[in-house]
Amino acid sequence: MKALINKIKSNQDLSLEAEAYLYAISEKKTFSKGTVLIKQGQTTVNKVFFVLDGCLRSYCIDKNGKEHTLQFGIKDWWISDYIAIHNNESATLAIECLKASTVIVFNAKKLNNIFTQFPEYEPFLRNLLERHVVSLHQRILNQLQLTASERYDLFLKQYPDIEQFTRNYHIASYLGVTQESLSRIRVEKIKK
Amino acid sequence: MKALINKIKSNQDLSLEAEAYLYAISEKKTFSKGTVLIKQGQTTVNKVFFVLDGCLRSYCIDKNGKEHTLQFGIKDWWISDYIAIHNNESATLAIECLKASTVIVFNAKKLNNIFTQFPEYEPFLRNLLERHVVSLHQRILNQLQLTASERYDLFLKQYPDIEQFTRNYHIASYLGVTQESLSRIRVEKIKK
Repeated sequence: MKALINKIKSNQDLSLEAEAYLYAISEKKTFSKGTVLIKQGQTTVNKVFFVLDGCLRSYCIDKNGKEHTLQFGIKDWWISDYIAIHNNESATLAIECLKASTVIVFNAKKLNNIFTQFPEYEPFLRNLLERHVVSLHQRILNQLQLTASERYDLFLKQYPDIEQFTRNYHIASYLGVTQESLSRIRVEKIKK
Repeated sequence: MKALINKIKSNQDLSLEAEAYLYAISEKKTFSKGTVLIKQGQTTVNKVFFVLDGCLRSYCIDKNGKEHTLQFGIKDWWISDYIAIHNNESATLAIECLKASTVIVFNAKKLNNIFTQFPEYEPFLRNLLERHVVSLHQRILNQLQLTASERYDLFLKQYPDIEQFTRNYHIASYLGVTQESLSRIRVEKIKK
């Protein structure tokens, strides 16, 4: 948690009370590989995760049983099912640990209430949300205009070590390609 | 502008000074159909648009000359090239008016500075950004898991009147399908 607080403090002041509140609404936990933190379809989602170490994945399973990966959560990333939290509906996504992971677990409601009591957190979140919006815009544009091979290159730049603990279908389902296409792209890269 | 201020006021208090500042950093303008508000590649992007009436489109042209639509901006939507603004780089996107449009033009820097002077705007923006993140997550998941025909159905629900003033390639390039595929989907729908 100290790491997260230092991160916030690097950009702005934070009172001791505001700092204490962050501790009060959170809990540091370590989960083993394969642990499911949110199950798709569960009736309420009330947790938000900040990754200290490890790798999480958010994904959904469609009506044909096929998985689609929305996000990988590595060190210093936030991850949850924000669709479910924002719309107050059952989980659209599942979240699992791709390797043993240490996270700070926040209660989503209490995290949201933080701004009423401590508006000093607003600039931190604004910056985080703005950066996230920009990266999502970029991802949508990349999906529309780049080839699968170009998207794979970008993916490896963004997540340089991720191939050690992800399976072929994790990455394929993030890029929106079949596993066969991804294998072909990888073979082509080795040849070069 | 009154409409935007009332929108903000429906959720929170706003001082007269904060209201006056919003007027001071903005200008209401009407543009004719076809007007380009941001040109892809222009060195700086310093404008953000709030749509009062009409329809704008943000898109990029790839290295092969093909257009890809990121967003349509209709009544009450914000639109700009946030990638360029956030990264302080030249315009990744172009923004054009698909019909005569009335917008409030904000200076991006002054709009960003509003939070220092008037932190009371923070909750409004946070809510806006959160909703936008959720809609982008949903769009990425839809792109990964739905057929082109299902995505077209959702698009028409989200933008019920948009076909009156958009061309076939505007919608095809938003959905990530060829114009031929979109035409086929439309024919299929008429047959049903």
